[in-house]
Amino acid sequence: MKKNPEEIAEDYFGCNDRERAAFELGIKLGALFHQFVGAPVSSENIEVLERAIEKTTERQAFVKNAEVHIIPKGLERRTESVFHDYTTLSGDMLDATVEVDFKGINAKGRLKYVEELDYPLMYIEYIK
Amino acid sequence: MKKNPEEIAEDYFGCNDRERAAFELGIKLGALFHQFVGAPVSSENIEVLERAIEKTTERQAFVKNAEVHIIPKGLERRTESVFHDYTTLSGDMLDATVEVDFKGINAKGRLKYVEELDYPLMYIEYIK
Amino acid sequence: MKKNPEEIAEDYFGCNDRERAAFELGIKLGALFHQFVGAPVSSENIEVLERAIEKTTERQAFVKNAEVHIIPKGLERRTESVFHDYTTLSGDMLDATVEVDFKGINAKGRLKYVEELDYPLMYIEYIK
Amino acid sequence: MKKNPEEIAEDYFGCNDRERAAFELGIKLGALFHQFVGAPVSSENIEVLERAIEKTTERQAFVKNAEVHIIPKGLERRTESVFHDYTTLSGDMLDATVEVDFKGINAKGRLKYVEELDYPLMYIEYIK
Repeated sequence: MKKNPEEIAEDYFGCNDRERAAFELGIKLGALFHQFVGAPVSSENIEVLERAIEKTTERQAFVKNAEVHIIPKGLERRTESVFHDYTTLSGDMLDATVEVDFKGINAKGRLKYVEELDYPLMYIEYIK
Repeated sequence: MKKNPEEIAEDYFGCNDRERAAFELGIKLGALFHQFVGAPVSSENIEVLERAIEKTTERQAFVKNAEVHIIPKGLERRTESVFHDYTTLSGDMLDATVEVDFKGINAKGRLKYVEELDYPLMYIEYIK
Repeated sequence: MKKNPEEIAEDYFGCNDRERAAFELGIKLGALFHQFVGAPVSSENIEVLERAIEKTTERQAFVKNAEVHIIPKGLERRTESVFHDYTTLSGDMLDATVEVDFKGINAKGRLKYVEELDYPLMYIEYIK
Repeated sequence: MKKNPEEIAEDYFGCNDRERAAFELGIKLGALFHQFVGAPVSSENIEVLERAIEKTTERQAFVKNAEVHIIPKGLERRTESVFHDYTTLSGDMLDATVEVDFKGINAKGRLKYVEELDYPLMYIEYIK
């Protein structure tokens, strides 16, 4: 019987299904960070940028849901100057939650700036 | 008298205002290409991605208007597989028009795949 | 006793150490894909770009080793034209191997174009 | 007589050669900023990243020379933690000079953080 693409892909993996779910979460969080950091952001386009990051993430393999909030750091200094009307998106402005479903295993991950670490941490909330 | 930010910036430039307008157009087209190429795109998120590219471009200095169309190449092969449900945005899928206004000079530029060149060309339609 | 940053981070995680290792691998592969796809590449700069991707990946948390090969697809059409002297890096040109060590657990992952899937697959070779 | 690619491209442009040179400079500076911002950077990989940005820029149409320096801001806080061993490249860490030659017209542009503006300014040094 001919294998479907998911089965062909599975033959490449040397890990169990929960580890696979964790791996898929990591891919999506690493991807969204490095795809969108650097984008020009202002109070006028925060929402459309949040939706675009969500919708591009949700198209990727095994993603069930994505929620993105951009924290408008650095926008408060805003002046009438054309140069200060926006900032570039940085990792510490992102609060992103991604849920994957791999063969019935649900895993939820998050990218969030952790003040105590002064670092935009990507972590797994749960796998179940 | 204190200079405003635009005047401070102008002191750095060794060119005339039309050349400056051309330069600003180039920046915006180069930026949007390299910021968004690689993003996952499917028929479900094309529109929100188009709006996000427009809105992030419009926030940048001197931009009056931006219009972006994504040509859905490579999405027709779509199957039920989770791997083929989307493609990654490439330069030849982008048709983007940007207008800048620098001190009353209007310049319009475009990024468009030119079949004859097999190349996503960035060009200036006019400066006036 | 004061916790160190790694311990503070661990409190955020709801998964075991092998799953964490899998997650860290995913982050690195997702990151390198979306950071570098779109970069201009030609036979003259393939090597320096490969080294840059390796070295930027190796600086990230828990990475022991990274190896990157860029397959020069699309460069053979090369002509004397300034437009065809290079191409932009796409996912199917990347063959990247990343090894992480999380608390003694070794995990190896890879990004490679799989012809049978017509897809740049990211997978875990092993976790041990 | 058959037109070459450069001639085909020129038919799209509604501007003079100096403006074209300015436009090409803008493209390259916008491109390098948005391609590489977000990359992980540490004292160990600054040099290879600088060379990669130079070499990818130099492959693009009409570029004669590119020089890139990364100012290691944010690396001084370095500790023994795996999270603080690097930072992500931001626009204000970049000092990049690009020279283009379009039909004998030489133009030099630069991306540099300007303290007075608190802004990574892209500007044209000269066109001649």
